[in-house]
Amino acid sequence: MQTTPLADEVRSALGRVSTATLTTQLFKRGFRNTFLHGLQPFNPEHAHFVGTAVTLRYIPAREDLDVLESFENPEHPQRAAIEQVGPGDVLVMDSRGVARAATGGDILITRLQQLGAAAVVSDGSFRDSPRLRTMSFPTFAQGPSATLNLTMHHAVDFQRPIACAGVAVFPGDVLVGDLEGVVCIPRHLAEEVAVAAEAQERLEDFLLDKVRAGASIIGVYPPNQETRAEYEAFERRNRG
Amino acid sequence: MQTTPLADEVRSALGRVSTATLTTQLFKRGFRNTFLHGLQPFNPEHAHFVGTAVTLRYIPAREDLDVLESFENPEHPQRAAIEQVGPGDVLVMDSRGVARAATGGDILITRLQQLGAAAVVSDGSFRDSPRLRTMSFPTFAQGPSATLNLTMHHAVDFQRPIACAGVAVFPGDVLVGDLEGVVCIPRHLAEEVAVAAEAQERLEDFLLDKVRAGASIIGVYPPNQETRAEYEAFERRNRG
Amino acid sequence: MQTTPLADEVRSALGRVSTATLTTQLFKRGFRNTFLHGLQPFNPEHAHFVGTAVTLRYIPAREDLDVLESFENPEHPQRAAIEQVGPGDVLVMDSRGVARAATGGDILITRLQQLGAAAVVSDGSFRDSPRLRTMSFPTFAQGPSATLNLTMHHAVDFQRPIACAGVAVFPGDVLVGDLEGVVCIPRHLAEEVAVAAEAQERLEDFLLDKVRAGASIIGVYPPNQETRAEYEAFERRNRG
Amino acid sequence: MQTTPLADEVRSALGRVSTATLTTQLFKRGFRNTFLHGLQPFNPEHAHFVGTAVTLRYIPAREDLDVLESFENPEHPQRAAIEQVGPGDVLVMDSRGVARAATGGDILITRLQQLGAAAVVSDGSFRDSPRLRTMSFPTFAQGPSATLNLTMHHAVDFQRPIACAGVAVFPGDVLVGDLEGVVCIPRHLAEEVAVAAEAQERLEDFLLDKVRAGASIIGVYPPNQETRAEYEAFERRNRG
Amino acid sequence: MQTTPLADEVRSALGRVSTATLTTQLFKRGFRNTFLHGLQPFNPEHAHFVGTAVTLRYIPAREDLDVLESFENPEHPQRAAIEQVGPGDVLVMDSRGVARAATGGDILITRLQQLGAAAVVSDGSFRDSPRLRTMSFPTFAQGPSATLNLTMHHAVDFQRPIACAGVAVFPGDVLVGDLEGVVCIPRHLAEEVAVAAEAQERLEDFLLDKVRAGASIIGVYPPNQETRAEYEAFERRNRG
Amino acid sequence: MQTTPLADEVRSALGRVSTATLTTQLFKRGFRNTFLHGLQPFNPEHAHFVGTAVTLRYIPAREDLDVLESFENPEHPQRAAIEQVGPGDVLVMDSRGVARAATGGDILITRLQQLGAAAVVSDGSFRDSPRLRTMSFPTFAQGPSATLNLTMHHAVDFQRPIACAGVAVFPGDVLVGDLEGVVCIPRHLAEEVAVAAEAQERLEDFLLDKVRAGASIIGVYPPNQETRAEYEAFERRNRG
Repeated sequence: MQTTPLADEVRSALGRVSTATLTTQLFKRGFRNTFLHGLQPFNPEHAHFVGTAVTLRYIPAREDLDVLESFENPEHPQRAAIEQVGPGDVLVMDSRGVARAATGGDILITRLQQLGAAAVVSDGSFRDSPRLRTMSFPTFAQGPSATLNLTMHHAVDFQRPIACAGVAVFPGDVLVGDLEGVVCIPRHLAEEVAVAAEAQERLEDFLLDKVRAGASIIGVYPPNQETRAEYEAFERRNRG
Repeated sequence: MQTTPLADEVRSALGRVSTATLTTQLFKRGFRNTFLHGLQPFNPEHAHFVGTAVTLRYIPAREDLDVLESFENPEHPQRAAIEQVGPGDVLVMDSRGVARAATGGDILITRLQQLGAAAVVSDGSFRDSPRLRTMSFPTFAQGPSATLNLTMHHAVDFQRPIACAGVAVFPGDVLVGDLEGVVCIPRHLAEEVAVAAEAQERLEDFLLDKVRAGASIIGVYPPNQETRAEYEAFERRNRG
Repeated sequence: MQTTPLADEVRSALGRVSTATLTTQLFKRGFRNTFLHGLQPFNPEHAHFVGTAVTLRYIPAREDLDVLESFENPEHPQRAAIEQVGPGDVLVMDSRGVARAATGGDILITRLQQLGAAAVVSDGSFRDSPRLRTMSFPTFAQGPSATLNLTMHHAVDFQRPIACAGVAVFPGDVLVGDLEGVVCIPRHLAEEVAVAAEAQERLEDFLLDKVRAGASIIGVYPPNQETRAEYEAFERRNRG
Repeated sequence: MQTTPLADEVRSALGRVSTATLTTQLFKRGFRNTFLHGLQPFNPEHAHFVGTAVTLRYIPAREDLDVLESFENPEHPQRAAIEQVGPGDVLVMDSRGVARAATGGDILITRLQQLGAAAVVSDGSFRDSPRLRTMSFPTFAQGPSATLNLTMHHAVDFQRPIACAGVAVFPGDVLVGDLEGVVCIPRHLAEEVAVAAEAQERLEDFLLDKVRAGASIIGVYPPNQETRAEYEAFERRNRG
Repeated sequence: MQTTPLADEVRSALGRVSTATLTTQLFKRGFRNTFLHGLQPFNPEHAHFVGTAVTLRYIPAREDLDVLESFENPEHPQRAAIEQVGPGDVLVMDSRGVARAATGGDILITRLQQLGAAAVVSDGSFRDSPRLRTMSFPTFAQGPSATLNLTMHHAVDFQRPIACAGVAVFPGDVLVGDLEGVVCIPRHLAEEVAVAAEAQERLEDFLLDKVRAGASIIGVYPPNQETRAEYEAFERRNRG
Repeated sequence: MQTTPLADEVRSALGRVSTATLTTQLFKRGFRNTFLHGLQPFNPEHAHFVGTAVTLRYIPAREDLDVLESFENPEHPQRAAIEQVGPGDVLVMDSRGVARAATGGDILITRLQQLGAAAVVSDGSFRDSPRLRTMSFPTFAQGPSATLNLTMHHAVDFQRPIACAGVAVFPGDVLVGDLEGVVCIPRHLAEEVAVAAEAQERLEDFLLDKVRAGASIIGVYPPNQETRAEYEAFERRNRG
């Protein structure tokens, strides 16, 4: 896995485009399954983020291992994982899509925020959601559940490739979130996708303005040769 | 299928009643399955609508047909369908309940609004939801998904009877939406249901006021002979 | 089942703690399945409640029994159940998790509010949700559905133990709701759980403050001997 | 509920017809939801049965109640229920459709067979299925599960109306099983349905023979006036 | 859609290979979604078939349209569809994956067999399954259901592209069934896939024999250059 | 994890008891979730096995990694995993419960059999099932699917703890299969559970004989003091 840090300009470009645009760019490159299905932001005003994945994996709990005392072990994988998160990281949790018990709560997520993490994403649920809703930290999951993680989830390893909401997530992949949800960009494509996505959005803003002004979508979306020429002229005027 | 336009007074009467009242009226006429299950308005402040169904049907995508270039064809069924939508129409999409990929996005829905459509309804998902949430156009689906429709959906025909969210929808049927969701009224029943629904709501407002004032529901909801007489007197006073 | 009324101080203590804290206390006592999965408050500003369960059970509707006229019977189990609800009660409905038809609407829920009920909880759906969203009464279900309950639900008995959202609920059990959802506390544990939950929250507030100030979670959450001593000193200062 | 025993000739008539024929007869009388969806016979050679329902209801297990010692109580609802089953009864279990833990095993089902029961039906699962597959006793459930019932199911009452596989079952209702599955006939309809079902099958056997001989289904299934006359002549010849 | 009849040698070649081999050949050509998920043969001894699709589509039933009398109409789409089926055709039904009510029964399927159809496939269920299990006619569905189709399904059109078990099926596509299930081959690929599949199976039989004789799969499956050379020599000896 | 080989007598004792008995013994020791839900043997005559877990984990496929050529890499995790399986091992696959694409087929499973493996278990599906049904090798999965694993599954690591069918499986755990399904015994409990299970079955065989002879289950199952004394006398006679 590529582990060079994400360049600042890539990070900011990705922060200016939507997850919908990014899935289109990934589709153009042959990737059909990159949007994490069914997750929602706990605080819609803090849904935007860009970061690189660090991964935590849960398997089903086992009654002899998953007792309250297990958290006293400083090497407990969930707690150790959290302390290894750094600035710009997104902690992504594979909860097997099981939302009946939480995969984290307010104290752990406050710690992630303190460590400079960009976001936390789980395909299960989080608890203490009333407080999470008020934090200025991007938090995505299926929904809330007050149930303690130990009843269903055993944290088992860190920084292994995982499944999250039906999508493969490798450590180092780039995750981008907005009000729509979260997309996972394979690490080696982040740069080219960022550039192409910005170009696509400039074009689509132009097309949307035409549609708002009454244009038919036929010939406009997607643009035919004439519309495309018109756009290029517009671009030259505005960017020249 | 009956295709005479919906009379203005029917349209406005239906706009004054709730979807819950309409399902009761349809139940009285033997219809048990008329509410589209599990859909939500993307912009709750713009959930109310009344319109007549135009229908679009998707089947699963096929990799050789569902490529980005397919949209350049001016007769692509999805794009052609949208351009045929007229004032007061509701575009209803049969997505087989598959929400993992969108069935439309902001440019198409902006075009529908420009064409005077009353609403758009899908039993799958829409993308560009952050923008859809800010539009003054009724948009109902299971939820958002950034994934491109081509990954899962192949638009196949227009104006055929469809399934949407478990309900049969025939072109020309009358759809009514509110914050609760969407109900489908078979076209030939729209007029009589509109009249009966308004009468039901006048009665229920009266009963609700009694309950708010402390009345038991026994004898009041549903009303017994005495309560019914009381209501009729009330009606005579207020409408006389 | 124990039926002594819930002491006022227990009720207020439970009203000061979160459902997440309560599930932790129940887990410590061997209870793993106490949070009602997948329910949401219809009016998030009125999600908090504490009350004792009265239960109503539905089975699938049968076409000869579940006709509109059935509600005219003053002994219809749903209507009779509602009139037996008293101050501080929570009406909990076993809808088999079937949300395609409502299990109640605005008139019935207004009556519950008039009777002093603490809340209404269903693992199905409610109708008239636009009005329910504006009421100052805690209402929890999977979501809204305009469909009449008679299409799918037959009210069959009252005050029997039930299943609700995957959890066993016995009449007299204590239900507590907040923005996260609803937890069911077996009646005989309510007092001890209330005391322990308040203690847990005082400790966790202290720990959260430390994490907000930059502490690692290792040694802090859960607290090691040193952190625990620090907390005890803090408690003595503040409570002494 | 009507509790007169089922007449022998009704019982034998029902044993001669298929569950498919019975659902048609019930549909003609307005009943749309009478077939228990998704159950299979554990021993296909012993799938046929006719009997009257006795009902057992489970709710989710609770860790303090559902311990192995609970079965030592001679009044444990599951064990007591089994001993109250008599000749010709069908024990029907409401397991909320949860198949992850069994609702009974070989010893209990052997006891039912000894008591002369006609069958056992659960919308969950049974354990000891390798042995159940070899018993000459009709046993229907979703499938096998080795998991002890106590992990998920708490037996709570006997002879109350229940839901089983999505269908309302009242004590005394008549259940009929064959290789296709199980149908529930409301008790008061058993006699008339039995007679009508036998007539329907005689007609359909005649029609099937015509189709086997090469007839089109148009005019034959359903029969037009001519085919119907032909059938009546055939009946007179064979029954006269 | 291409409608030339399927050549006899293509039909027989397809009958000699497995559905697993066919999905591999389709994957090589970019098709990932061609196997109809979750269907089973009602009579495992008669699971093999090859045929061209004729399609029937159902939407949810509507109580005023889906009455028993509707079948008396000789142009009822389901009945008309069946009479248009010819030798070598496979009738494929889009039931929206809803198996709670049947999409056909023994008389209709007997008629299909009389007309020379190759098979019948539904993504819902069939009734009269005890008889279907004894017929020498390939019949695939999710499973049995005694419930009349009218309770849930309204036959709406014939020979339109459909979804079946999550796969796009166009009229004229080639369907192949075996004990594993059913694969749908886009019509224009049938010939080349048939040839390539036979070649693949000859190779895999050779490789399987090596594995049975103790070879490691490394270098053998898939074959490296050496194994491939060995196979080519083998082929020359046996086919030369 | 404990990795000492399983003693022969433990292996044979476990082979003499049923999975149902084993889940009871595990429940007695506090383990509630040990049976792999929803799996079936492909060849019911070869369902019995005992072995120690070796584990393979899949995540969702990614189009650039999961191409046919990937199998040519001798270190492809799936292929490498298979070659590391030894006598008495059970290869257990975490497929995230996704059965729409296979996790293996006949050549790989033949290789496992050659290597002396005890069984193969997946919570997804296998392809080439017609051949698997005829092999004398225990093979458990949800069911068959012809679809190539590459369309949905990316093999990612070997010998890590996994989830399989909702149960935690650690490398070295003991898996036991019979016609009912598969149970996972934590490695350190295998010996004591084997002994206790045999004792339980001797007792239950005795109790079943009593029930077959007409005894009530009350006092017999579970046995009261008197029945227990009777059993002990019986044991002394037969084992003395």
